[in-house]
Amino acid sequence: MTDTTTSPTPGPATSSEKMRAVVLQEKGRITVEEVARPGDPDPGEVRIAMHTVGICGSDVHYYTHGAIGDFVLEEPMILGHEGSGTVVAVGQGVDHLQVGDRVCMEPGIPDPRSRASREGIYNVDPSVRFWATPPYDGCLAEEVLHPAEYTYRLPEELSFAEGALIEPFAVGMQAVTKARLRPGDIVAVIGCGTIGIMTAIAALNGGAARVYVSDLAHEKLELIEDIPGLVPVDASTENLGERIRRDTGGWGPQALFEASGAAGAYASIWDVPAPGGVLVVVGMPTRPVTFDTTKAQVRELRIETVFRYANVYQKAIDLAAGPGVNLAPLVTETFPISEAVAAFDRGAEGRPTDTKLQLTFATSDPA
Amino acid sequence: MTDTTTSPTPGPATSSEKMRAVVLQEKGRITVEEVARPGDPDPGEVRIAMHTVGICGSDVHYYTHGAIGDFVLEEPMILGHEGSGTVVAVGQGVDHLQVGDRVCMEPGIPDPRSRASREGIYNVDPSVRFWATPPYDGCLAEEVLHPAEYTYRLPEELSFAEGALIEPFAVGMQAVTKARLRPGDIVAVIGCGTIGIMTAIAALNGGAARVYVSDLAHEKLELIEDIPGLVPVDASTENLGERIRRDTGGWGPQALFEASGAAGAYASIWDVPAPGGVLVVVGMPTRPVTFDTTKAQVRELRIETVFRYANVYQKAIDLAAGPGVNLAPLVTETFPISEAVAAFDRGAEGRPTDTKLQLTFATSDPA
Amino acid sequence: MTDTTTSPTPGPATSSEKMRAVVLQEKGRITVEEVARPGDPDPGEVRIAMHTVGICGSDVHYYTHGAIGDFVLEEPMILGHEGSGTVVAVGQGVDHLQVGDRVCMEPGIPDPRSRASREGIYNVDPSVRFWATPPYDGCLAEEVLHPAEYTYRLPEELSFAEGALIEPFAVGMQAVTKARLRPGDIVAVIGCGTIGIMTAIAALNGGAARVYVSDLAHEKLELIEDIPGLVPVDASTENLGERIRRDTGGWGPQALFEASGAAGAYASIWDVPAPGGVLVVVGMPTRPVTFDTTKAQVRELRIETVFRYANVYQKAIDLAAGPGVNLAPLVTETFPISEAVAAFDRGAEGRPTDTKLQLTFATSDPA
Amino acid sequence: MTDTTTSPTPGPATSSEKMRAVVLQEKGRITVEEVARPGDPDPGEVRIAMHTVGICGSDVHYYTHGAIGDFVLEEPMILGHEGSGTVVAVGQGVDHLQVGDRVCMEPGIPDPRSRASREGIYNVDPSVRFWATPPYDGCLAEEVLHPAEYTYRLPEELSFAEGALIEPFAVGMQAVTKARLRPGDIVAVIGCGTIGIMTAIAALNGGAARVYVSDLAHEKLELIEDIPGLVPVDASTENLGERIRRDTGGWGPQALFEASGAAGAYASIWDVPAPGGVLVVVGMPTRPVTFDTTKAQVRELRIETVFRYANVYQKAIDLAAGPGVNLAPLVTETFPISEAVAAFDRGAEGRPTDTKLQLTFATSDPA
Repeated sequence: MTDTTTSPTPGPATSSEKMRAVVLQEKGRITVEEVARPGDPDPGEVRIAMHTVGICGSDVHYYTHGAIGDFVLEEPMILGHEGSGTVVAVGQGVDHLQVGDRVCMEPGIPDPRSRASREGIYNVDPSVRFWATPPYDGCLAEEVLHPAEYTYRLPEELSFAEGALIEPFAVGMQAVTKARLRPGDIVAVIGCGTIGIMTAIAALNGGAARVYVSDLAHEKLELIEDIPGLVPVDASTENLGERIRRDTGGWGPQALFEASGAAGAYASIWDVPAPGGVLVVVGMPTRPVTFDTTKAQVRELRIETVFRYANVYQKAIDLAAGPGVNLAPLVTETFPISEAVAAFDRGAEGRPTDTKLQLTFATSDPA
Repeated sequence: MTDTTTSPTPGPATSSEKMRAVVLQEKGRITVEEVARPGDPDPGEVRIAMHTVGICGSDVHYYTHGAIGDFVLEEPMILGHEGSGTVVAVGQGVDHLQVGDRVCMEPGIPDPRSRASREGIYNVDPSVRFWATPPYDGCLAEEVLHPAEYTYRLPEELSFAEGALIEPFAVGMQAVTKARLRPGDIVAVIGCGTIGIMTAIAALNGGAARVYVSDLAHEKLELIEDIPGLVPVDASTENLGERIRRDTGGWGPQALFEASGAAGAYASIWDVPAPGGVLVVVGMPTRPVTFDTTKAQVRELRIETVFRYANVYQKAIDLAAGPGVNLAPLVTETFPISEAVAAFDRGAEGRPTDTKLQLTFATSDPA
Repeated sequence: MTDTTTSPTPGPATSSEKMRAVVLQEKGRITVEEVARPGDPDPGEVRIAMHTVGICGSDVHYYTHGAIGDFVLEEPMILGHEGSGTVVAVGQGVDHLQVGDRVCMEPGIPDPRSRASREGIYNVDPSVRFWATPPYDGCLAEEVLHPAEYTYRLPEELSFAEGALIEPFAVGMQAVTKARLRPGDIVAVIGCGTIGIMTAIAALNGGAARVYVSDLAHEKLELIEDIPGLVPVDASTENLGERIRRDTGGWGPQALFEASGAAGAYASIWDVPAPGGVLVVVGMPTRPVTFDTTKAQVRELRIETVFRYANVYQKAIDLAAGPGVNLAPLVTETFPISEAVAAFDRGAEGRPTDTKLQLTFATSDPA
Repeated sequence: MTDTTTSPTPGPATSSEKMRAVVLQEKGRITVEEVARPGDPDPGEVRIAMHTVGICGSDVHYYTHGAIGDFVLEEPMILGHEGSGTVVAVGQGVDHLQVGDRVCMEPGIPDPRSRASREGIYNVDPSVRFWATPPYDGCLAEEVLHPAEYTYRLPEELSFAEGALIEPFAVGMQAVTKARLRPGDIVAVIGCGTIGIMTAIAALNGGAARVYVSDLAHEKLELIEDIPGLVPVDASTENLGERIRRDTGGWGPQALFEASGAAGAYASIWDVPAPGGVLVVVGMPTRPVTFDTTKAQVRELRIETVFRYANVYQKAIDLAAGPGVNLAPLVTETFPISEAVAAFDRGAEGRPTDTKLQLTFATSDPA
């Protein structure tokens, strides 16, 4: 609503020094090169030496397509928004962080005075600046400046690798928060990719008694078969709705999360949720989707849609540090920053057994 | 879950006496004829002498098509589910109603022991018996038996005609209840038919500061132009979303109700609701609908679907009797029961200026 | 969480010019005197020429006691927080207000970066700066500076007097919002003072079918007896709970608002709400209150507490401008600013027939 | 609302055979004696051979005091309401249970046609018949008749002992359900007795990241110190609020459950919950409690009260069978039915190290 010169989210100050960063120069071309190192933090900011950054499907999509929807790469952009690191400088007025703190960062910064922010739904503020979403640089650089209130200290239970997984976990947390589960609900997730697994883990630790996870690729289901409380369902051989109805006296799951992002998945899901249940749209289909409103109405389904997250980051960290969550096994492989191009090429392959690929600036200790 | 011989919702006992009823004999053929008069009420039941019954679009659809979706007319069925009348006999154990009470009736009776009923969402109980939905007879008859707990006394502020309007008003009430409006919300309704108007009135009296109502037919909009708080929007000349954004500093309505039931309406609604707002699916499109999930996600819209109503009938009566609601003008014309066929034929015409047609068993006093 | 030098809510810049203001010099002594006129608005701010300011019970309490709880007057303070006026200067970056706009202002300004603000509950941010709460000056001055995002344009339906009533109306709106009424609920309010009436009007227009308002002083009840939908109950002669149970088949109201602030009121309210209903604590008793938890538990009551308001100001304005609300009659008398001392002395009398006293800077047109 | 002769919850039919039961003859005198064995199940009912029954504080209180509040023992009554057993006969129309099914039973049976039941809050239906609450017999008998829809099949993961713990677990589940936790919330529970532990476990598995549990008796805290995610706080040496604020950057827990039932506990809890948080009243103080409404208002706390449970039994079973819950260690000792008097005397001792005492009808296999 209000744009001021004392902007709360200024672009980063830069210094005359240089640092390495992973830059998407144009569609199909990534370089690891020297860029200007950020300067001193403004009041309310911190400067962070990055340790680990995960590669997200959106990073890969900018790499392979040069755009996501209306967001088009028009000049070189630093990639990465799933990051963890160490605070190396603290701006004036910041009192909850100190130099040396291990941290992870929420990558989207809204205008704190916008109407959406004031209502507590800052994720849907149209003026959000999100890392590695054109025209804003991401965090695949040696150092970044960031608002202190979107920088979170990692508890000792969490490694840097896990800290960099908080971002995708936060998406699952947002999805489960919006579902408004009741303790002991039976839940299902369609899609066993990174977001599907994150959603399943968030659901299981967010109140669900057990979580059915379906996928057409049995390799993906193997990733979760050792997690107690998750029930893999091979959608190529078993009907998800029938399976859960059989296990629940015909009632079905109170919540169904669509996390595959496949538009085709919507053809067969309308009779899955229990009467009065909820369908949560987590994945983002690339084309409009056919809804069977009559089937939804007969069960009076609620449908929630998810866009990033708001007010869940601290909760995601707390839950990840708790007894029921272990995110570490979701990292399939970690690459040094010098192999960033290879890592993105690997991401572009889309191997079904790859859950999360990460890059690290660390030279020795990978934790 | 449980079916017992001491069924809580038995089929009506009948007597050897006769009474008039409006019977759909088969697709396209209605008769007013003598049927068996119901006998004494069972424990927990009352017998009601019907006064006024509204003609619903579903009644007309059974008349013209012989079926709605999976519900197919296979033998003659008494029509009507929007009824009011007077209690003429009271079964054992009924203590909140007396002979002579003016009443209206909730037409769907669930199994009170089903899981849906126990959770308070008895409208989605698959075992609901609903008046004039095959194979169950409706209430277009001189007398009906009904469970006492689904029979509601009319306050003196409400006429029989208004009592028979409570049923469609309850649909609007359910839609508004599910929207979970906050006081002072700005609201929009697409479709100015009976359900659209009912929804708009329920929204205005259910907390909305004002309600925009759009329709392509300007004749329908004229029906509401004198109701303070309702803002007609001629969709043939004005874009609903743009209009409301202009009036709300670019924000949009917190709730949008789709009450036209036109599948095509979904093509242009995704940018209407405010960020974090709700879309309520009230109308029942006859074919699957295309959802733009990405647009919905970017605003993190919630979507609620509506199927009849649960636990709103008493509230609908109380609100209808309050200072802000006047349902009476929604009755376009009232026919005596002897002209039932003409009334249904008129309903089948679908005149845009017809809101509600009613039939009455009363011979003198139409109130 | 974060305190920065580019503070989003700076203290007002001042100019060398003078203006009149109503200053509480110390407990018991108010003066109307010359103070420094504020300077140009900072970015994101506007300057407002005040028109009308209501006298709140808290203003009177600082006058008569010099303190409210932990808030103690330690140096002279300008009074007033219920204000309306006209924008006379607009800071950089403000695009939704123009010079000449008639406006009212939300008097509490939080730190937009605090955790409470980010969660959308900025009213409970401990760092809120609230007009006329020591040590912050209020708005009983010719001109004030204010953040643009907490300054709201008045629609033409609302006068300046009504604009200055939005603040107490917002308290009622917050109370009703927290009650989460369903359309058609039956509601009761204890206490027919300003806040009680504001709550009752907000409830009636926020979804209630009718609102019972009880008070021991029959003069106060006369103020509302002509408002359709409000049902006065003389608590000196009639038991509120019995009355409503009689009218509702023994069930009771879904929501009960305690707006008298009398600790003694809690002795007799526990059997008033319906099973599963809500008690909203609006009034602020000056001493701890005895709760009958067992009675509350047997009905599984929810209890909500209210502190000022968040995200309701625009909704309060929209609802006040709608067809069901008329706040103007709540102004008992309007005093010119030169008679401010007399007005505060009148307020300190606490006449039961005084609802709202207002002061105006206007010399001619009182609207 | 409606009482019918075809009552859905009839008193049990009896046969001429006899069986053993644990009967509270009068205050202070329990006998194990022969009573009439129930007859065949009515339609919708099942007959269950009891296996294990837990001793609840309320059973003990009837034993030691002869009454709880308004419920006064006036004639001999079979004790017990925390039961599990095996289905031995199935009434007509029951299709989800078979002879031989291992089951546990919800002990309160409402009128399914009451208004509370229809709204889904059957626990607050005034007409509920609850086992071992005068004048209704409990389940400490060889066999009982019970409505099928309140009889739940035990999954193979749960023993009879655990099945008999579902009842107190359901109380904790109801408390957590009413708190409406968000995934990752920080939670605190006051009181480490059976209900406090049940609430803590339900909270931890209902979405909380970690649960602080405080008690003045360190022996009780030892019972939970090995449960990951529960943080014992010795209230005799450490201030609960200060501890959690220190761990949460000054914010506090989103939910605080008072499960000690000590009226004195309310003296020091008002600054524990986070701003906007919730206080859940689980324990039932025997005398009215002093609430500091001002402190509650400044944080705008919500207060929920809990009375038994509704619609949580299946969820409690599902959660108890899941990976995060292990109720079995909560059973301190199991007595054969012949030692019932000794078991109740032990319960009346109130040893701090006794969590749950159970009685069993089984002669060999205790599972």
